[in-house]
Amino acid sequence: MFGIDTKGVYAIAPTPFLPDGAVDWESIDSMCDFYLESGVDGLTILGILGEAPKLQPEESVGIVKRVLARFDKPVVVGVSAPGFAAMRALAGESMAAGAAGVMITPPAAMRTDDQIIGYYAQSVAQIGSDVPFVLQDHPLVTTVQMSPGVIRRIVTENPSCVMLKHEDWPGLEKMSTLRAWEAKGEMRHISILCGNGGLFLDFEMERGADGAMTGYAFPDMLVDLVKKHFAGDNEGMHALFDAHLPFLRYEHQSGIGLAVRKYVLSRRGAIKHADLRVPGPKMSATTKAEVDGLLARLAKIDPRAAF
Amino acid sequence: MFGIDTKGVYAIAPTPFLPDGAVDWESIDSMCDFYLESGVDGLTILGILGEAPKLQPEESVGIVKRVLARFDKPVVVGVSAPGFAAMRALAGESMAAGAAGVMITPPAAMRTDDQIIGYYAQSVAQIGSDVPFVLQDHPLVTTVQMSPGVIRRIVTENPSCVMLKHEDWPGLEKMSTLRAWEAKGEMRHISILCGNGGLFLDFEMERGADGAMTGYAFPDMLVDLVKKHFAGDNEGMHALFDAHLPFLRYEHQSGIGLAVRKYVLSRRGAIKHADLRVPGPKMSATTKAEVDGLLARLAKIDPRAAF
Amino acid sequence: MFGIDTKGVYAIAPTPFLPDGAVDWESIDSMCDFYLESGVDGLTILGILGEAPKLQPEESVGIVKRVLARFDKPVVVGVSAPGFAAMRALAGESMAAGAAGVMITPPAAMRTDDQIIGYYAQSVAQIGSDVPFVLQDHPLVTTVQMSPGVIRRIVTENPSCVMLKHEDWPGLEKMSTLRAWEAKGEMRHISILCGNGGLFLDFEMERGADGAMTGYAFPDMLVDLVKKHFAGDNEGMHALFDAHLPFLRYEHQSGIGLAVRKYVLSRRGAIKHADLRVPGPKMSATTKAEVDGLLARLAKIDPRAAF
Amino acid sequence: MFGIDTKGVYAIAPTPFLPDGAVDWESIDSMCDFYLESGVDGLTILGILGEAPKLQPEESVGIVKRVLARFDKPVVVGVSAPGFAAMRALAGESMAAGAAGVMITPPAAMRTDDQIIGYYAQSVAQIGSDVPFVLQDHPLVTTVQMSPGVIRRIVTENPSCVMLKHEDWPGLEKMSTLRAWEAKGEMRHISILCGNGGLFLDFEMERGADGAMTGYAFPDMLVDLVKKHFAGDNEGMHALFDAHLPFLRYEHQSGIGLAVRKYVLSRRGAIKHADLRVPGPKMSATTKAEVDGLLARLAKIDPRAAF
Repeated sequence: MFGIDTKGVYAIAPTPFLPDGAVDWESIDSMCDFYLESGVDGLTILGILGEAPKLQPEESVGIVKRVLARFDKPVVVGVSAPGFAAMRALAGESMAAGAAGVMITPPAAMRTDDQIIGYYAQSVAQIGSDVPFVLQDHPLVTTVQMSPGVIRRIVTENPSCVMLKHEDWPGLEKMSTLRAWEAKGEMRHISILCGNGGLFLDFEMERGADGAMTGYAFPDMLVDLVKKHFAGDNEGMHALFDAHLPFLRYEHQSGIGLAVRKYVLSRRGAIKHADLRVPGPKMSATTKAEVDGLLARLAKIDPRAAF
Repeated sequence: MFGIDTKGVYAIAPTPFLPDGAVDWESIDSMCDFYLESGVDGLTILGILGEAPKLQPEESVGIVKRVLARFDKPVVVGVSAPGFAAMRALAGESMAAGAAGVMITPPAAMRTDDQIIGYYAQSVAQIGSDVPFVLQDHPLVTTVQMSPGVIRRIVTENPSCVMLKHEDWPGLEKMSTLRAWEAKGEMRHISILCGNGGLFLDFEMERGADGAMTGYAFPDMLVDLVKKHFAGDNEGMHALFDAHLPFLRYEHQSGIGLAVRKYVLSRRGAIKHADLRVPGPKMSATTKAEVDGLLARLAKIDPRAAF
Repeated sequence: MFGIDTKGVYAIAPTPFLPDGAVDWESIDSMCDFYLESGVDGLTILGILGEAPKLQPEESVGIVKRVLARFDKPVVVGVSAPGFAAMRALAGESMAAGAAGVMITPPAAMRTDDQIIGYYAQSVAQIGSDVPFVLQDHPLVTTVQMSPGVIRRIVTENPSCVMLKHEDWPGLEKMSTLRAWEAKGEMRHISILCGNGGLFLDFEMERGADGAMTGYAFPDMLVDLVKKHFAGDNEGMHALFDAHLPFLRYEHQSGIGLAVRKYVLSRRGAIKHADLRVPGPKMSATTKAEVDGLLARLAKIDPRAAF
Repeated sequence: MFGIDTKGVYAIAPTPFLPDGAVDWESIDSMCDFYLESGVDGLTILGILGEAPKLQPEESVGIVKRVLARFDKPVVVGVSAPGFAAMRALAGESMAAGAAGVMITPPAAMRTDDQIIGYYAQSVAQIGSDVPFVLQDHPLVTTVQMSPGVIRRIVTENPSCVMLKHEDWPGLEKMSTLRAWEAKGEMRHISILCGNGGLFLDFEMERGADGAMTGYAFPDMLVDLVKKHFAGDNEGMHALFDAHLPFLRYEHQSGIGLAVRKYVLSRRGAIKHADLRVPGPKMSATTKAEVDGLLARLAKIDPRAAF
């Protein structure tokens, strides 16, 4: 179950759209099935990857309900918003509909430790202290920098914080610092799942991560990777990771990366259309050829890339 | 009427709240009456000052309709949003309800000239090229820096751009550059109203501004000031401006400034409660004493400050 | 003397240049005389206003020595630099030449509390813990935001920190917080002089400031203002401040403000040429006319502006 | 020779230090020999990787002269500085000593297109239009974003711009845009070498790059990779790249990456000590073990990693 002891893979799900920009409701169902078959332990929806800011509130709520009706494992809902009214509304409707918890990212204006910590205190006051939440630490996108001490204070002061989505870069020493504090009893234990496109997932697992929470288009590979680690097969984990790294790195590009992901997910049958809602980047013919080339090379090692 | 030839004062209106955080609908009516009595030529609602990001979409639409039902001069609605779906929805509902136009602020991530210009092209595509819009240039808050050439390109490429809300700081030379381009036929004419708390309104008028669009709690003073300028009495304009400057500067503080404005507006009877919706700053006792002292000194020169 | 009990005015001195961009050594002498005659208690050189980043190291050292040879009151030297080698070298040469202390501004990259506090620890380790230093808190220019708690930690952990150059904006509540901590014995006492162009100096004095450290072109007015406050004449202080505010506000513009300051200082005979070293803004004819107009109005109240 | 037709690999060289922080002059010689043996076509010194901001001006000049005395292929000197006086001095001394050209990075404050273009115009005016320069486009570190059109304008307006150090991320489409403009005669041809740690060097070569300018600790691999590409063996290029990617990605971490690079370079005998000048990160025991593990895995494929 979703909580401080969660281990495994939570896929970050995109939001499928029709070519005309409308939400592709049917693809939500097939996408849920795809993720279930890939063996993930949970799903996170309406994150940055999910094009959440492009959605209308009623669309967001509709997507939450559609996913919850189909996906019978824990679902975390991204509820970050420029204002607390919107955050509270979406969190309330999501939890009422059966979500396992919510994810909160600090807005870009947060700078000092006190501002960041105060923002989480206010957020919890708004959504209710009974709603489990994931703390997202993603400075490359948010520009908000949280020291390990700030994370510890948020965890300490908010019992409803159950998980860290770790995607600071570089972030290996931060992971080690947090786990060392836990080991010494200087911080309570939380689950740590890794994002940042998975670019350092191999070493993050060795440093104490509990798994992955990222949108890489091969969630089944992430599931295998995490299992190998927990089975003690770090050698096998690295081999699998290294085989995927050339494509994983390519997919991790800001902006265009989401177009690549949706393209692969549509090729794999998870969603029907690769389209992003405007404004969003489109893959050039060269990009498409590069992706196809990368997948062809990957397919020689991992048959999942052959489709 | 609202358009490229607009001259005068458009007040930036706050959003009145009850002490419990709910929208204070009755105060919207009294606030509209206050602005009408103060002699302003129009109203801009749901701007940064209006705590717009803290509102739910249905609240925003409700406020637009309530204002339009009461205020019988042009109303501009701030429709900036993190996503285009929300912008399009609010713009559509506002125009359908009778708004004169909308105001669009670029999001903080915009950096290059192409990004900024592209953002306005996309915005116009979303809201419709028949909706008159105000271009807000407010780098101190948005961190987006527009050179004069970028403003000219937006004006040139988007016929529906009718007005610039000028609040770059320092911005006097930018004003002169734009007006010089117009004079030489190198840029079509638009209306320029000045924000930035009015801190340089005196010289901005002399440099070619058409008036003010700011939230200073004495809109009646702004009306007088602009009239004096257009009547050729710049000496009188400066005297009036200088008398208000100590308080105007105080009110122009980021964050706490809005609390001060609402306090004065409530003292003047425009709104019933000075409260901001959370999260928002509260005036300390010292701040309140400073404001009262400033107003007492101002009242010796301008009786409007005696209440 | 310069230290935690310093009260009064430290002028921020510009660096005078010849029209060809060379340092104007003779004007350094006349400038020192001007500041002595204006009654200031000390001088701060090579700050942001001093165009310090445009100087070669040997020029910086030369300026320090020339000033120290002429100005027989305490001199603080700005030693902020992109690297510690440069900071250490300039601090060492300045103290050896007789400077009273140094001023350190954090580089723009500092974000978290730990980064800022660590930067000051490293700086002190580099320049020596026996060198008294001024902590500059100027987020509008540096983008570094220090909470009151961060300032307290720097003061507590570094006994050689003797003074805060307070120029956060808005910053009145920060001033009150720091002084309240001192009153309750929760922070050791330091001197606080105010910068930010003096825009809130009136209320900063009432909130507990010890004086001003800014480059306003009428340092003699600042001296009078601070004296009035300490003589208990806050009414007179406000009247003097308000009279200067229209011009003070104008001079406080980023970029062009320094050109205005040098123009006034050259008109007052402090320096021979108003030139900035390239790259730097030049006053347009309109700007010059505006400044002359402001000074003419000011001269009716304060004869110092008549020259 | 160094110029618009340059192809191949320019290594970004670190600055070797002794454990006590002094410049390790002897290691400069051995480092030059190492790079010559690795087959690189040129060297770039005093870049971000070279810890340039930590150097005193006389150290910088000394390093330039020491390298030029030993390395008999083209040397480019990074001359970026917070002020033009320092830039002009270092550029002048470097060219007089025999450097092939200089590299200029825009300061972080540059935002609008005009600011960036103006900065390069001023830089060229300062260093002289006869000094060939490399335009560094590195937004992840500088926060300065240059659109392709800005690069074209700098190239067009400054004939002394001979090379682009391309390290925008993501940047593949930018590369294609610039090369397409050249092909259509809409932009004059310049050399483009790729930085950004080499993370996309494989596809950048296919998109039209002329080679690499980065500090990866296996410059001999970069030389092989570029040769394979120009020999038409893109399949072999990708295989070589993919083998190095797990370590290359690890080395590409901000901050700690330089410590890793110096560690490998010291293990390979290029420099004697892996130390960075303070302030700089140190490798933890875990990091060192991870690096050793990565190298051990790499050594099974590429014997250069066995040492």
